[in-house]
Amino acid sequence: MPEIRRLLDANRAYVDDHHGFDGPRPRRRIAIVTCMDARIDVFAALGLELGDAHVIRNAGGRVTDDVLRSLALSSHALGTTSVVVMQHTRCGLAGVSNTELEEVTGAGIEFFVIDDHVEALRSDLQRIRDTPYLGVFDEVVGFVLDIDTGAVAEVVDT
Amino acid sequence: MPEIRRLLDANRAYVDDHHGFDGPRPRRRIAIVTCMDARIDVFAALGLELGDAHVIRNAGGRVTDDVLRSLALSSHALGTTSVVVMQHTRCGLAGVSNTELEEVTGAGIEFFVIDDHVEALRSDLQRIRDTPYLGVFDEVVGFVLDIDTGAVAEVVDT
Repeated sequence: MPEIRRLLDANRAYVDDHHGFDGPRPRRRIAIVTCMDARIDVFAALGLELGDAHVIRNAGGRVTDDVLRSLALSSHALGTTSVVVMQHTRCGLAGVSNTELEEVTGAGIEFFVIDDHVEALRSDLQRIRDTPYLGVFDEVVGFVLDIDTGAVAEVVDT
Repeated sequence: MPEIRRLLDANRAYVDDHHGFDGPRPRRRIAIVTCMDARIDVFAALGLELGDAHVIRNAGGRVTDDVLRSLALSSHALGTTSVVVMQHTRCGLAGVSNTELEEVTGAGIEFFVIDDHVEALRSDLQRIRDTPYLGVFDEVVGFVLDIDTGAVAEVVDT
């Protein structure tokens, strides 16, 4: 297991340097939903420190049932009051069809492809607003991150 | 929107410092599935650089349908060949019952609570192994991260 071994070796150095935290509640009461894309450093891109925010990530940064499950715990049990859904340019889910992805993967499932980021974000933010079992979020906002420049290029409000 | 404004202000500093990436394929061909917990810095804990790995995060770091959707794209479309499921000590999903979480949140849903990490990881790794529409993963491993020391305290293999 060469890659796994390398991860574990790196972890030993991390331990020497580690500072513990007291509780699980995000200090800045923020939950960020974003894409799994390897090019996104959520903390650096948004000036967050470790301990500040929940980070929920999946293919596309889409608000799926599983994201709602995570947000239910985040808001009710752990006190978050702001949520940002951050999608990004050059995403693997943008500009492709579900049929194409079914062909590539062999999976006959819903992939939550993105035709247009503003439209996808509006629909995802609405899904958060419409879900009765989430805690009250004071701020529910969508960002489009430009993967080339690192800038939040668009802000979509509800 | 005070918190959102602060995120956007921080992003401006990030842009000045940003280096772009060429493609979306994770350089080290790794996908990490872990918890949304605010105390986890995936890159630091495992010695990963930006661009090395997909990062998929939800409440608990459990292998749900949405994680399988993300892994289908990660493996077939973006070439990952190793997957690590990393859960952690003092997780909000460990040592509670689904009924308790239903009461806290008001949501009558499956929360994927964790009675025992080794058992939960074995079942999650098996779910990855049993899903026919994922690409071939050479390495499928579970880690338990000790949130206090930062150490990978247990490694669960398939």
